[in-house]
Amino acid sequence: MADRVFGHIDETYEGQVFSNRLELSYSGIHRPTQAGISGSQNEGADSIVISGGYEDDEDHGDTIVYTGHGGREDGSTKQVVDQELVRGNKALALNVLKGLPVRVIRGTDKKSNYAPQEGYRYDGLFIVEEYWKDIGKSGFNIWRFRLRKQNQNDISIANILKEDQSEYKSTKRVETTVQRIVRDTELSKSIKLLYNYKCQVCDQAIETSSGLYAEAAHIKPLGIPHNGPDTLNNILCLCPNHHVMFDYGGFSILDDYDLIGIEGRLKIHSKHYINKEFLKYHLHHFYDEKNRF
Amino acid sequence: MADRVFGHIDETYEGQVFSNRLELSYSGIHRPTQAGISGSQNEGADSIVISGGYEDDEDHGDTIVYTGHGGREDGSTKQVVDQELVRGNKALALNVLKGLPVRVIRGTDKKSNYAPQEGYRYDGLFIVEEYWKDIGKSGFNIWRFRLRKQNQNDISIANILKEDQSEYKSTKRVETTVQRIVRDTELSKSIKLLYNYKCQVCDQAIETSSGLYAEAAHIKPLGIPHNGPDTLNNILCLCPNHHVMFDYGGFSILDDYDLIGIEGRLKIHSKHYINKEFLKYHLHHFYDEKNRF
Repeated sequence: MADRVFGHIDETYEGQVFSNRLELSYSGIHRPTQAGISGSQNEGADSIVISGGYEDDEDHGDTIVYTGHGGREDGSTKQVVDQELVRGNKALALNVLKGLPVRVIRGTDKKSNYAPQEGYRYDGLFIVEEYWKDIGKSGFNIWRFRLRKQNQNDISIANILKEDQSEYKSTKRVETTVQRIVRDTELSKSIKLLYNYKCQVCDQAIETSSGLYAEAAHIKPLGIPHNGPDTLNNILCLCPNHHVMFDYGGFSILDDYDLIGIEGRLKIHSKHYINKEFLKYHLHHFYDEKNRF
Repeated sequence: MADRVFGHIDETYEGQVFSNRLELSYSGIHRPTQAGISGSQNEGADSIVISGGYEDDEDHGDTIVYTGHGGREDGSTKQVVDQELVRGNKALALNVLKGLPVRVIRGTDKKSNYAPQEGYRYDGLFIVEEYWKDIGKSGFNIWRFRLRKQNQNDISIANILKEDQSEYKSTKRVETTVQRIVRDTELSKSIKLLYNYKCQVCDQAIETSSGLYAEAAHIKPLGIPHNGPDTLNNILCLCPNHHVMFDYGGFSILDDYDLIGIEGRLKIHSKHYINKEFLKYHLHHFYDEKNRF
């Protein structure tokens, strides 16, 4: 089998329409002829098809809330058991951690304003921004993924991924490996000052040559579909390590501020009121007992 | 004095030309009438003027390598002592850590292809991507900053900074506070596998619900003007905390792999050959004994 390609496929173009899944498969844009997710647990997902098969999918155009696979009766769209963070779902979650783009193909779907009239349309590269679990319309656990259409800047990253990486070749201007885009709002400033840049989990402040560094972490995330508020009662002061762990389900926080997933207890300043509804939201959607080390 | 505004100034536009520094100051785009950097050590820098006053400035259009201030004789462009990471220089370094945009104004400069024919032209918002020290053409230490023109996606962040952040207002779709753009190349994959995702400084791997997480950190950075290579002998496996500290001068690594700035020693796998020239480059350019805690 050919190597999995993350990014655009040569000799295809965005907006290209294919009559059926077999044609789509031959193009290399989405190899599996039935599965919605093309990917592996170790490499990540290279492409997905969204075509109305999952009742919990939401298509907002440049933002898609995509439902993982599994849990449905054979040949039916009805969900009958919980989905788990395995196979294609695990692959898509890896895209979040690794910053890998995924090709998105839309099939016909009468409920969606963005679906093609017929066939399967390749709609370009999306970033998988976030993953979390939820209770779907049928009452069973589902895993969800927020995808965002790549902009021009992101695409340069995808192109790099396709380049041959020979050991000593000179490097042209590329993105740095990790680029932090930090919003330093009044709120994030005030939470960092309140804790003197010390992480509420490990009590450490990160020292740099231009001062202390910490990150403001939202408990119930901003944006579709969580729509958590950008308010102090929904923000923590964390070091980068615990921020990554918190966002990607490495630990969560119980009602009494004991941590779950790792040892310890959240440190709270007497002037910092945290809304416990947001803690509950995080615990239910981002923490998964089944994925413990 | 009015609050410092990070981002576009109302009732001005990109490309607007001002006859002189006084007009520029009245517009609010760059308040100081003489200083090249407008900013404070605690808040960051809101605007800079680039106008050929520093012999070490490099203007590549969308990328600018800007020299900090200080160290020059009064009324001269000649550098006579070392620059330090204080005042305006410290302010610009804070922009890197906080992700704050800076307004860039170009003045006339016969040596630059991007300078206006006359007056001062407002050229929009730039991200301050990186800061480091160097030895300038005159043989004294200078502090340098790589600026990159913001793209459409970045601009949404700047707009958010200008928004009034009232405590309970609902949040529309905004960028997450910290967005990691990770290139998962074959090289970064192999370095993480070699160390089993454990940080070469603290020996810890970050656990998430979809697996272990680590970051590949370049020792001599990629990109203008460092042009470090994307090769295994220039890459470390670090946790996010030590990656931030390493990139922003919190510590460096000596020839014998002892750490400087923090206690400890770099862990090296027997199959991982590191080019010591790159360690020297990092030590000389990113670590500053004067800025210790």
